Amino acid sequence: MKKILKNSPIYPIEKWRITEKEFDIETNYLDETIFSIGNGYIGIRGNFEEGYNGPGDTTLDGTYINGFYESEPIVYGEKAHGFGEVKETMLNVTNSKIIKLFIGNEEFDLLKGNIIDYKRVLDMKNGVLIRNIIWESPIGKRVKITIKRVAPFENKHLLAIDYQITPLNFSGEITLESAIDGDVRNQESKGDPRVGSSLKGQALKVIGKEQIDGYGALIQETINSQFVLICAMDNELETNNDYKIENNEFNQRLVSRYKINCKKGEKVKLNKYITYYTSRDYPIKEVLSRAKVNLYDAQYDGFNKLLRDQRRFLDEFWNDADIKINGDDVIQQGIRFNLFHLLQSVGRDGKTNIAAKGLTGEGYEGHYFWDTETYILPFFLFTEPEISKKLLKYRYNILDRAKQRAKDVAHNKGALYPWRTIDGRECSAFFPAGTAQYHINADIIYALKQYVEVTEDKEFLLDYGAEMLFETARLWEDLGGYVQKKDNKFCINSVTGPDEYTAIVNNNFYTNSMAKMHLDFAYKTAMEIKNEYSNIYQRLVEKIGLNEKEIKSWKKAADNMYLPYDEELGIHPQDDNFLEKEVWDFENVSKDKYPLLLNYHPLIIYRYQVCKQADVVLALFLLGNKFDKQVKKRDFDYYEKITSHDSSLSNSIHSVIASEIGYYKKAYDYFLQTARTDLDNYHKNSEHGVHTACMAGTWMCVVNGFGGMRVYNGELIFNPHLPDKWDSYKFKIRFKMKKIEIKVKKNEVKYTLLEGDELTFKHKDDKINLKHGESVRLPLKV
Amino acid sequence: MKKILKNSPIYPIEKWRITEKEFDIETNYLDETIFSIGNGYIGIRGNFEEGYNGPGDTTLDGTYINGFYESEPIVYGEKAHGFGEVKETMLNVTNSKIIKLFIGNEEFDLLKGNIIDYKRVLDMKNGVLIRNIIWESPIGKRVKITIKRVAPFENKHLLAIDYQITPLNFSGEITLESAIDGDVRNQESKGDPRVGSSLKGQALKVIGKEQIDGYGALIQETINSQFVLICAMDNELETNNDYKIENNEFNQRLVSRYKINCKKGEKVKLNKYITYYTSRDYPIKEVLSRAKVNLYDAQYDGFNKLLRDQRRFLDEFWNDADIKINGDDVIQQGIRFNLFHLLQSVGRDGKTNIAAKGLTGEGYEGHYFWDTETYILPFFLFTEPEISKKLLKYRYNILDRAKQRAKDVAHNKGALYPWRTIDGRECSAFFPAGTAQYHINADIIYALKQYVEVTEDKEFLLDYGAEMLFETARLWEDLGGYVQKKDNKFCINSVTGPDEYTAIVNNNFYTNSMAKMHLDFAYKTAMEIKNEYSNIYQRLVEKIGLNEKEIKSWKKAADNMYLPYDEELGIHPQDDNFLEKEVWDFENVSKDKYPLLLNYHPLIIYRYQVCKQADVVLALFLLGNKFDKQVKKRDFDYYEKITSHDSSLSNSIHSVIASEIGYYKKAYDYFLQTARTDLDNYHKNSEHGVHTACMAGTWMCVVNGFGGMRVYNGELIFNPHLPDKWDSYKFKIRFKMKKIEIKVKKNEVKYTLLEGDELTFKHKDDKINLKHGESVRLPLKV
Repeated sequence: MKKILKNSPIYPIEKWRITEKEFDIETNYLDETIFSIGNGYIGIRGNFEEGYNGPGDTTLDGTYINGFYESEPIVYGEKAHGFGEVKETMLNVTNSKIIKLFIGNEEFDLLKGNIIDYKRVLDMKNGVLIRNIIWESPIGKRVKITIKRVAPFENKHLLAIDYQITPLNFSGEITLESAIDGDVRNQESKGDPRVGSSLKGQALKVIGKEQIDGYGALIQETINSQFVLICAMDNELETNNDYKIENNEFNQRLVSRYKINCKKGEKVKLNKYITYYTSRDYPIKEVLSRAKVNLYDAQYDGFNKLLRDQRRFLDEFWNDADIKINGDDVIQQGIRFNLFHLLQSVGRDGKTNIAAKGLTGEGYEGHYFWDTETYILPFFLFTEPEISKKLLKYRYNILDRAKQRAKDVAHNKGALYPWRTIDGRECSAFFPAGTAQYHINADIIYALKQYVEVTEDKEFLLDYGAEMLFETARLWEDLGGYVQKKDNKFCINSVTGPDEYTAIVNNNFYTNSMAKMHLDFAYKTAMEIKNEYSNIYQRLVEKIGLNEKEIKSWKKAADNMYLPYDEELGIHPQDDNFLEKEVWDFENVSKDKYPLLLNYHPLIIYRYQVCKQADVVLALFLLGNKFDKQVKKRDFDYYEKITSHDSSLSNSIHSVIASEIGYYKKAYDYFLQTARTDLDNYHKNSEHGVHTACMAGTWMCVVNGFGGMRVYNGELIFNPHLPDKWDSYKFKIRFKMKKIEIKVKKNEVKYTLLEGDELTFKHKDDKINLKHGESVRLPLKV
Repeated sequence: MKKILKNSPIYPIEKWRITEKEFDIETNYLDETIFSIGNGYIGIRGNFEEGYNGPGDTTLDGTYINGFYESEPIVYGEKAHGFGEVKETMLNVTNSKIIKLFIGNEEFDLLKGNIIDYKRVLDMKNGVLIRNIIWESPIGKRVKITIKRVAPFENKHLLAIDYQITPLNFSGEITLESAIDGDVRNQESKGDPRVGSSLKGQALKVIGKEQIDGYGALIQETINSQFVLICAMDNELETNNDYKIENNEFNQRLVSRYKINCKKGEKVKLNKYITYYTSRDYPIKEVLSRAKVNLYDAQYDGFNKLLRDQRRFLDEFWNDADIKINGDDVIQQGIRFNLFHLLQSVGRDGKTNIAAKGLTGEGYEGHYFWDTETYILPFFLFTEPEISKKLLKYRYNILDRAKQRAKDVAHNKGALYPWRTIDGRECSAFFPAGTAQYHINADIIYALKQYVEVTEDKEFLLDYGAEMLFETARLWEDLGGYVQKKDNKFCINSVTGPDEYTAIVNNNFYTNSMAKMHLDFAYKTAMEIKNEYSNIYQRLVEKIGLNEKEIKSWKKAADNMYLPYDEELGIHPQDDNFLEKEVWDFENVSKDKYPLLLNYHPLIIYRYQVCKQADVVLALFLLGNKFDKQVKKRDFDYYEKITSHDSSLSNSIHSVIASEIGYYKKAYDYFLQTARTDLDNYHKNSEHGVHTACMAGTWMCVVNGFGGMRVYNGELIFNPHLPDKWDSYKFKIRFKMKKIEIKVKKNEVKYTLLEGDELTFKHKDDKINLKHGESVRLPLKV
């Protein structure tokens, strides 16, 4: 195990804000990520409206639209049958935030003149990014600049900027150039898959433009995927002074230039509204009109209305989702930052999902992984269940492609969800750590099962879930088989588990355990539908050929699933051969060799007992009622020693299990690794984007870990403890249309039913029943 | 097991020739391969001098120089540390055979006019390709054309063409255009790695040219590897008629045009000499002059001298290498064709090797594999040992790159030979079936060990072999380890054996067995050098840090090597988990699904007990004295059932072991699959080039299989039998500077010592001693 990192906070500790007090080239790249804003559809990094002229490796100018991608063939040095064919890359889209400022002939540039005052704030309560600057030009003219930027959660196609300038020590001409620029391209990865993409050159070509007064629109099209994108802006100047407006177009940039005769001390204000629409959202013929109507409406309502709506939306969000910590503002800030970014990143339309780096960077090409279902979806499920439903709906929408994928690989039946994708195709170009991770199917079904248990939304299960469930269950049946040498148990060979430091193994414990859950759930659901919803059953018989024989075979496979167990050590081996490998030499491998994947050929890593992340330990959490506490402890003790946590998905799971088995100190230490991962740049790569799964891991550490929350067989259970350093913490959980608040203090936990007539749940082993508005206080052991 | 193929002969059965009696577009592509000629340096496909205007997919116009390549970065969709960086691709070089013929204004073209008579002959005794044609032009002019083409074995930089035309029914102008063309490019693979390369466009750019009279030279350079290539021609016209010569240059083509006033019945003859020199052979400043001198000399000596030299060279070759069959001319022809092509393909300069498709096509990019040491080198070792020495010298010459490769992968020490390469770098872009095949190291050392035992060339071992041996032994030590769960045996995890239908496994039986041999040989050699050649030992201590501790550790690892054995079945499992997989459903998978690699994702294939080729069975052959006959029989019985023979390297090994265990019928059937693989196009892909390893497999089937020849511990052993269909067969073996002939008839084998004072060997278990010139006849059981 590696040493636990300790970083000191980069930004001041504030409960609801992230503040940058000084502009610094050194931290600019990271700041751009931290001050990203987004609404689950549009995401925009914290790049400056005026541009940035620092060194190229200290910035990434990026604006993204969730699910808007370019495709290109995946190139292989050597290719084999069934390898993924097409890569999808989330595009860096039209640069729309540009507002250049000229004072006389001097261009506003933070790298020139003097910065007299500077503050940038990400306000998480109001959902707005604000910059306040007092700047003195090289010849001594001072201006006060205030810029607000908002990506409205309730109007996903919109971005708005409120730009205010006040000349402080002069009167004279000021020019504002508001622009949208179609000449954008993605960052090239240069070998590190965590950074950028393989996409080269400009993928979005300009195919049309319109410009009149402060309005301008660019119509662009992707070369291969042939999607159309509209980016339109409308500018509105508020001033008592004379001004001229002039439209310009050069290269692929539309500029509206305002020349204003400013008076000392008199504020000038430019409101810029921006919309993005794509042909993935609406028919091509509609997109431009819709973009314009949205612009006009937004301008009509004004910027302040957007701010009010944003605040109302966020009040509701925080009311459901906030975790309140008393006694540790550092952590408080980290948690809120994480939850806020999750909300900013998540697609809520059933056609998009949540990328590994949200909408804050280009690493992993904007792909969706199992991170969604295993790490992120639970947060939404228990706070904003409608969003979790949309995430599952997304999987339903790509089910046909998953069926096609199973065929392409040469499976005889079923559906195989892609390891990484945007639009449903397998975009992994390295199958040992991609397609071989068949557990993705079970991860999705686990989320579906949780969703149904927590929301009781049977309708979704019948209309969409069942089809996904059965098609994916079929794949396990095709994939695995009864092996004589393993007492005719159902074995699953040649797969890769969550831990990518071991690949293509037999009977990965996590995979088999999850497949067992999956097949069992498929059997029970099929039987229930057959017995209780005969019309639905009939529809499934017709549509997907569901039949009794296979339903029974799922039960048989689940009942006979082979789960590796080592009698001698009393632990679950990660796979059939895991314990037959040498243990990685943590003592003698220097720190700079981590993450191992950047320093060793995969074959070297595969040869050792070393885990990139929780694998067996993750199964202990997800399927916690299937294993007793003693084996959990032995497993945790064993695997903790050999886990490098090179993945940001690892610490949270270790924290949750450490909490469960009473390793409270460890639980807290692991939690610390997740709570401020991006805010304090623990992995030294947050400049490339936030780690969304890790952010959601923070929530798990508190709710599932410290709060000890589980849902087993539809029953809600808590088993809380209080970290030593805290005075108290509280959070709320939505469960079966009800809402409960859990407040944990020294020696005491208080449960309050906030919504719903009544709720029965368990505190440890005790059943508790609460009526609406009731609270119960229960003692905790110290 | 798949059904055994039976193809009827495509060409007439002749003992020393391959003849094509009719020109046919349908078979043109294959014919081009079959009628390839080469001398181990230059290889030229059987393309016509006049060009070919048939459909594009019925031809590949190709001329190759062994080891002359272009490099380019390997592109990965997802890359990880230590992946091969650079691909090397054997280039299709300057097209130099061009001789166009015009009768008046009518261009000679086999697709036009009438072919009155046609014959093409590959004469394997004389080493010449001959075409005889009588052609009638569309307007009715008849010419007789005779073309001889030779690639002299004793002048590797040279090609020569003797082109004769006789007007049969007219007098008039005939034009001959002799040209060399620099505008050449490689075939693109379109996904099938067995076909072409990923190299796109023209890799060889023309950087200079010279032309005067019948002489012309093109100087070309590769873009990335920056090698210089000279291709020069000199033309000499022999005629009693008037003629004009005119030089032309267009695009990248130099043309010498001869306009001749021909008389009916009078032969005109053009001698064309061509040389190729590259900066890989000589310093750049020398290459052009050397090319010219070689041309002048060849022209001075004349074409007939080349033919005489070629015949003499081949007489010697056949005298050593021929296998003579009485009673089966079909097989006789196949064997000679295979041995002839091996000679044409093999590099004999210590800087080049033998490519998977020789110099007859572009499949596998002209790379050298383990095919050399395991399949091809033995043929040369026992017939032309000097060539086998050169092949080993090649491995010594790339040792530094193998050491670098070990570092790149992140091994702590040693050398790792590349799975596929030209110039020593790992060119495999799919490591599970490339770099993971660590057995390549042992395969090379096995060949070295055999070489030393068979030739007693201790000098080579001391000067070159030892360093290769010890550096590669070190790698096993770094790679493997003593595993507690395996009784502290030395285990080798995460490797791929010869059978690529299973990848990244633990304790592959072949690999571990070969590593044991390797480490043991390293130990014994090191001890011998230490005790008997202290100056050499000292040099190795200084040069590679050889030390006693590691020498001992090699012995310990060899002595404790883990070799999987299944008590229940009494067989050697292919690896630790092989028997825990389901058996491939040969019964119900249709024929068109083979080779499996073209129809199933690797993960599907990995999941079954199905072998692409001999794996355990190969170990039984190479390490035959380590296993008793009963286990060999059980292993063979087991693996034969699950082997698809999708690799052309499989049948020969099965034939040899079938012979050994007395399955004579099967031995012969498997042999049939190798003897005429290319000649009868068994794999339906010989158009892309011959299968050199399979060709050498034929020799093994006869010598090691039917002849039962082995060398164990420096002792030569025979255990012959006669295939039912044959009257007799005979072959010769060079062993310890001696030469013995083995003739097997019904009921009898006759051994004759042809060279050397005396030789002791074994016939079955009996020691036989022969003096020079002596023979012994021994009875065989029927």
